Amino acid sequence: MTAPAADSGCVLCAQDGGALVWRGEKLRLIRAAEEGFPAFYRVIWNAHAAELSDLSDADRNLCMQAVAVVERAMRDALAPAKINLAALGNMVPHLHWHVIARHDWDSHFPASVWAAPLRARDADREAGVAAQLSMLDAQLAERLSAIFR
Amino acid sequence: MTAPAADSGCVLCAQDGGALVWRGEKLRLIRAAEEGFPAFYRVIWNAHAAELSDLSDADRNLCMQAVAVVERAMRDALAPAKINLAALGNMVPHLHWHVIARHDWDSHFPASVWAAPLRARDADREAGVAAQLSMLDAQLAERLSAIFR
Repeated sequence: MTAPAADSGCVLCAQDGGALVWRGEKLRLIRAAEEGFPAFYRVIWNAHAAELSDLSDADRNLCMQAVAVVERAMRDALAPAKINLAALGNMVPHLHWHVIARHDWDSHFPASVWAAPLRARDADREAGVAAQLSMLDAQLAERLSAIFR
Repeated sequence: MTAPAADSGCVLCAQDGGALVWRGEKLRLIRAAEEGFPAFYRVIWNAHAAELSDLSDADRNLCMQAVAVVERAMRDALAPAKINLAALGNMVPHLHWHVIARHDWDSHFPASVWAAPLRARDADREAGVAAQLSMLDAQLAERLSAIFR
């Protein structure tokens, strides 16, 4: 196999991009450290691709299967009000999917995490979510390993 | 075939949700009317499903193929700086994908469209994008019809 294409100026080609939860041949999962949203993961395509439509059909299916597996594990563990999925990449145009558990008590709900906050953060409830994340990380790694190389 | 499941309280079960560009058996494409972002489309799953992980593997693949087809047609027609994809659904928990062409001159770039604006809108350039949309709508409908029922 040839090495994935890399862009020397791209931070997601150079670095994991967060706390690595699982790494496979095609993609990796990291847990982000975004204030106010403890259960905020990113599925990052390993090779440098800017847009989802740059992937082959097979690769796109694989990428979105991984996103769905991560989403499902987060739903099972956290029972959030909603999962938010987004591939923006305006600042880092290397395909990465934000997978974010939203709760109706979080500082921005039902607005997007990129909007202005609607209320104060709830430190106790955030800590309650955070306390579940080491177990969730392990479940995520197990589920991804069961499906992907 | 049985009718898709519908939720009587759901606006995306009751209405198209925007200017209909194309409708298929499983999904539809609408063009939204979001101020400042003329090339803002939504791929809406016809049946009521809250989360991507509620779809079968086959349906998820089909849904994301449609998103990629829309994205590719938008890139071909508009050569945007970036495409943004998002399935949030905090307010309307019925699976819909925002597919948004972003330009480096738009009012929010490189922030998300849900963030605070970074500069004034450029009416002339917005009009330049808007002038291409009737042709893009036709191309989108043609490409989707070629692939999906």
